Parts: sequence; C-alpha cells; structure tokens
Amino acid sequence: MPLGECELSVTLVVQKYGGTSVADLDRIRSVASRVKRQVALGDQVAVVVSAMAGSTNQLVGWVHGLDAAGYDTAEYDQVLASGEQVTVGLLAIALQTIGVPARSFLGWQAGFRTDRSHGSARILEIDPAPVRECLAQGKVAVIAGFQGISPERRLTTLGRGGSDTSAVALAAALGAQRCDIFTDVDGVYTSDPRIVAKARKLDRITYEEMLEMASLGAKVLQTRSVAMAMQHQVRVQVLSSFADLPGTLVVDEEEIVESQIVSGIAYSRDEARVTVLGVSDRPGVAAAIFGPLSDTGINVDMIVQSVSRDGVYANLTFTVSRADLPRALAVLERARAEIGYEAVGADADVCKISVVGVGMRSHTGIAHKMFSTLAAKGINIHAIATSEIKISVLIGEEYTELALRALHTACGLDRD
Amino acid sequence: MPLGECELSVTLVVQKYGGTSVADLDRIRSVASRVKRQVALGDQVAVVVSAMAGSTNQLVGWVHGLDAAGYDTAEYDQVLASGEQVTVGLLAIALQTIGVPARSFLGWQAGFRTDRSHGSARILEIDPAPVRECLAQGKVAVIAGFQGISPERRLTTLGRGGSDTSAVALAAALGAQRCDIFTDVDGVYTSDPRIVAKARKLDRITYEEMLEMASLGAKVLQTRSVAMAMQHQVRVQVLSSFADLPGTLVVDEEEIVESQIVSGIAYSRDEARVTVLGVSDRPGVAAAIFGPLSDTGINVDMIVQSVSRDGVYANLTFTVSRADLPRALAVLERARAEIGYEAVGADADVCKISVVGVGMRSHTGIAHKMFSTLAAKGINIHAIATSEIKISVLIGEEYTELALRALHTACGLDRD
Repeated sequence: MPLGECELSVTLVVQKYGGTSVADLDRIRSVASRVKRQVALGDQVAVVVSAMAGSTNQLVGWVHGLDAAGYDTAEYDQVLASGEQVTVGLLAIALQTIGVPARSFLGWQAGFRTDRSHGSARILEIDPAPVRECLAQGKVAVIAGFQGISPERRLTTLGRGGSDTSAVALAAALGAQRCDIFTDVDGVYTSDPRIVAKARKLDRITYEEMLEMASLGAKVLQTRSVAMAMQHQVRVQVLSSFADLPGTLVVDEEEIVESQIVSGIAYSRDEARVTVLGVSDRPGVAAAIFGPLSDTGINVDMIVQSVSRDGVYANLTFTVSRADLPRALAVLERARAEIGYEAVGADADVCKISVVGVGMRSHTGIAHKMFSTLAAKGINIHAIATSEIKISVLIGEEYTELALRALHTACGLDRD
Repeated sequence: MPLGECELSVTLVVQKYGGTSVADLDRIRSVASRVKRQVALGDQVAVVVSAMAGSTNQLVGWVHGLDAAGYDTAEYDQVLASGEQVTVGLLAIALQTIGVPARSFLGWQAGFRTDRSHGSARILEIDPAPVRECLAQGKVAVIAGFQGISPERRLTTLGRGGSDTSAVALAAALGAQRCDIFTDVDGVYTSDPRIVAKARKLDRITYEEMLEMASLGAKVLQTRSVAMAMQHQVRVQVLSSFADLPGTLVVDEEEIVESQIVSGIAYSRDEARVTVLGVSDRPGVAAAIFGPLSDTGINVDMIVQSVSRDGVYANLTFTVSRADLPRALAVLERARAEIGYEAVGADADVCKISVVGVGMRSHTGIAHKMFSTLAAKGINIHAIATSEIKISVLIGEEYTELALRALHTACGLDRD
C-alpha cells in the first residue's frame, strides 16, 4: 500500500464481532476472511472481539461456584477478562495464516482506561497511540473488547454490552470513518420481524431513534454504545456476521435524507404496573411514594395520576421493571404509614409499545393515529408516556402481537 | 497480627501449586485451606499458581488448530497466559470466602519482566514492590506463574516448568525464607519409587544433586528453577498438595549435616546412541562431526572415542536425545564427504543411569562399585561420563530396572 502519498485518504474502519461470531475455530477463520476483505479494499482495520460464546458463562459459573454472592468484583474481572484474551490471540493468528499481518491487544494494552467500578466500569479515556502505531505499520489491530484497566492498574470489565461500547469508543478515539458491529441479526428493523412479518430492514436510523429502540428492548445495540456513538458522532453500522449484506447505518439526523415520520415500533415486556389506590391528594404525596423507591435504586417509568371526583383522594399508577416489582411492593408496604394509602395493586402482565421517529418532532397526529388504531382493535391503554420522538403506551401483555402489527400497518411501515 | 512490634521476625513463604492442584473448584478450595493454615502460623504468604490442568492443553490445541507450525509466538503467549489469569482470580475469591484477605496478580502486575523470547522467555528482573505492598497490608498475594511481560509490554510465557521458576524467582526477589513447591509427589526419592520399591524419600538434598537429578529425568522440579534457586540461595521444599507431610528440602551443601556419599540413582530413557565407524584419526575430525550437529541445535552428551589397533581409523560413539536422533543422522549423512567415515550406526534402545551425590567429591571408589555391580548382573556399559558429583553410564534399555535396583542396594540407599 503506498501509504506515504495518500495517507489522508486511507479509510479507518473499526469492526466488532460478538461471542457467537467467534464461538469456535471455524467461525474465527470466517471472521478472519471477512477482515481480509475489508483490508483488501485498502482500509486500515481495527477489530474488537468478545469472548467465545459460552466462555464468559463458564467463567461466571466458576466464580459463583466459589461464592454465590458478595464476591470481590475486582477478582471477578480478573477471571472474566481472560475470555477476550483467548479470542484476540486466536484471531490474530487466524489472520496471519491467511497472509494478513495482525497483532492483538488486551484492553489495557490498547489504552482503555476506566474507572474502578469493577464489573460495570466506565471508559474514562482511550490512548489510541498503540493501536494507531500498529495500523500505521500496515497491520490489523485485534483488540479485546469489554475490558480496560483501573487507575490502580487492575483489570476491569465494562458489564453488559461492553464490547459494543469498546468498539464505539475506540472508533471515536481513532477518528474512524465507521464502526461496523457484526451480530447475529442483519440490521435494525421497523419492528421485531419474528412478530411482524411485514417488518422492513432500515437502511438508516438516527442515534436518537436507535437509543429509544435500544432502551425499549430492540436488543441489537446496547444503549450505552448508542449514547456514546451519538456523543462522539461515530457512524455505526449494524450488520450480520453470517450473511454478506449491507446492514443498518446509525447516523446523525442530518444524514437522513428522506425521513419517515415513524421509523419503528418497539416493545418491551420487561414492565410491571403498580397502582397505589386512595392516596390523599395533598402536596408531597408523590415525593412520599417515589422517594423511597428511588432510594432503593428502583427506576420508575410511566406515571399516571387520577384524582377522584371529590378531589380528596387520588390513584397513582406507574411502571417499574418486572425484576424490581417484588422490591417495589415491599418498599411501598414499609412506607405505608408515611404515604397513607388504601391499597396497592400490581400487574406484571403488561407490555410497553412505543412508536418512534424523529419526524414526529415536526408532524402531529401520530398520537391520535396510535390511540385510534389500538381502540379499533379493542385494546385498552393503561398509561401513556411521550418524548419528542416517541409515544409509549402500556397495554395488557396478551395484546402485544396484535398491537405491534396494527400499529406497523397504520404507520405505513409495512413492506410491499 | 501485631506486625508493628515484631515485623522483622515475620516469616515470608512462597507457595507454588501446579495445574493438578487447581484442576477444579474443589481442589482450589483445598489449596485455599492449605494457604489459610500457613497464614494462621503468622506467616506472610505469596502463592504462585499454574493454569487449571488441561486448560493449557486446550489453549495450545486451539492455536495448533489454526496454525500447526510457524504461528506467531507472541500471540501464542497472549492466548496461553489467559490460563493462570483464571486460577489466580478464583483462588483469591476462594481465600476471601474463608476469611483470608487476598488479591491476585498477573505476571506483569507482579513485576515479572522478561526478555522477548516468546514461548520460552527468561525472567530478567522482578519488581517486588506490588507484592510486598499487598503482603504488608496483611493480604495473601496470589500470583500467576509461567508469565511475564516483554520490554515491548507484550505478554510472555516462560515455557515448560515456568511456574516453578516463577515461584523461585519471586522467593528470591522477596527474600522469602522458603519456597514450597506443591506437586503430586510428596518429595524427592533416592530413586524412582515406581521401579525401586525400596527407594526412600530424602529429607534434604543439595542444589547440585537436585540439578543432576532433575536434568536426568527425575521430573519433580524443572532444571531451570533449581539452577535459579541455587544461584539465589532460595530454600526450596518439594511436597505433596494432596497429603499433609513434610517434603524434601533442597538446600545449600552447608545445610546438609550428615551427608550420604550417594544421594540417589537417576535414569533417563530419553537417550539415543550414535556410532560413527571408521573415521580417520586426524586432528579436526571431532570438530568436523560435532560442528554441524551443534549448528543444527543438537546437544551431544556422552562421547567415547576408540582408536583401532593400527592407529589410523577410529570409532566415535556419542549420545543425543531420542527426539533429535533422526535429525542427527541426517546431519551426519549430509556431512559425510567432509567427515570421511565408513558407516554410521544408531541405537535408540538405551538408557542413561546416574549415581549422584555431593559426597563423591571426597570419596573415591563409587565408580568401581558401580561398574562391578553392573558387571555382576551381566550388564554391558556402552559409554561413561562423569562429573564431580555424578557418574553416568549408558546401558541397554532392557536393563534399566535391574540396574537401578542393583545400584540402589549397592550404594546403601535401600529403605530398611
């Protein structure tokens, strides 16, 4: 490669492969071939990889086998970080055997400095110099995702979805033209294709939309990585490591030429509804309810307050994540005297459905279309929440599929 | 522990556990209990561990599965070093669960600096500060053996027996009172107890004797670690991690109060005999034979030259390791014209038997006793080699057991 004369025009691409893409030697070879194709285009390539599928679970299983709770998270990280160490070395070797110069980096070797929150560390800074030097030597840099090093020079792991975050952060630090996230789906869809047969793959989606989709259970990209991509304006592509097709590009709103009003319909079954009945309608009562929940680390999402006809008593409905429901009920029970309520009701069989689209900022009428579509199907709405680019409703879980398909059609998203 | 008032009298012990001792969670728990017993004596304890038995083989298998030969040894080290990373984290957690404060260190975190000979790196220096600090805090330091970091800050592994070497080197750097090597045998014996039923466990053995025993196939301790212990005067104890008995102490000659003339009878089947027949007896002929062998990296051990009666032609017999025999024969074939010989003979069915003991420095007569004992059993000697503390003979392999037992008895080593 005549790097000297056209250095400025070399494209730098970060690729990320998850655990299923490097699950065995055959798949590692297949990843190596894919990296080679990118290199053949004349691009500089940095590859971020996860541990082999299953290996992290085995390591976690060993730690839990010794100490089911309360183990030292710094030691947990020491054990877990060994997983990616294996795959980076193996992928570097697989690349070398097909004639692609490569070298591997552990998180700390690639300059990933994190805070000391072992098990869910945050990246503070990346020193891109070692990886840059490797790329400048015409080599592929293979980097262990999910890990970094604390100020005390102990190994840290980034927690769930950490490898996506590693890849996006590295792309930002290197000023890469693109960050390709290879996964087992081939892109972001207008809705879950397992439920909505007419769902279409999106060519492009904005960071804001992706954030809403990600946090609402369209588990293609982790929320953290999308937020980081948005912050640093990293162009992220989600695509399949098993097919050879373009995926979905996650980009800034300005890059979306022809924007749909609605981009997708997301859903989350990870919800539970709590209703506090017969609360006296006085100042400070909301604080009396939500204060103790917040102190216990329970996130409250949709909130609806309905006042009775005499204006003295109110009912308060809100949602928490399904996993938090038992704890939320216990907190309310303990705070009963302080809050002063008649009864508490709970329902875990609910689903949150969200219509998402940046076009909703400038177009009205989507809320009306959403409510009337659901009403026409006889679906009752328990709660509503809105943001600039999203309307969410809480409905009975058994209506999930019906609601998704009806809204997908009503919003004009169906594939021809 | 009232460290403040008796700091100088605190004993520092390095323990080393091999792969079979940490092969699963139960064994790791058992190692933790053993460490706890040492801590309960008031000692500071640094523990060096290997990877779980089998894990290194799996990692090597993956590397070979991608590239059977010629792989990048730096990447091989990256993959292999993950093995001890798992065990140090797990052992630290196992210690914490039984109330023993502990933290783990990878090779580089514990200050193991090596050269850049990936796959068989040499330790250049150990910065003992991080481990010292950990011990001073009243914690057990759990250190990954077998690994270090190169001047380029890439991970290195020390090759075969590396964890023993790590432990001894650390003991030297820390100025430890003792380095306990836990293994699956309970000490060093006067001969191989599987062959010589009357073999006795030695309470003490000198470094020099241990070196001869180790290099001669008594595979209790790796030669490198013994040499390092001798150089830095580290008291090494070999003992079983499965029994609760004192083992064998490897110490300086001065510490041996009542020395036997002969300490043990070692043997090695890893030998092959080569005979070059009809070489002209002129100056430089030995160089013509051994030069090309040495250039090819083949070690030559015992050498016997016999001159024919007319003094013109000689026969040259020497030994090489059995694995090197095919290459040695190929080298001789290629150098035939230059050397000028009639024929080459080879015999892989040979065994080297050695009588070892520092007492031989001041006592004569052992050689005579050895030769006459073998002669009485009808065993022919093909070659002889001696050092200050050792006499070795090469015999037919089928006589191995007979010779070992006869010499063991003749040297007065039999257990009562």
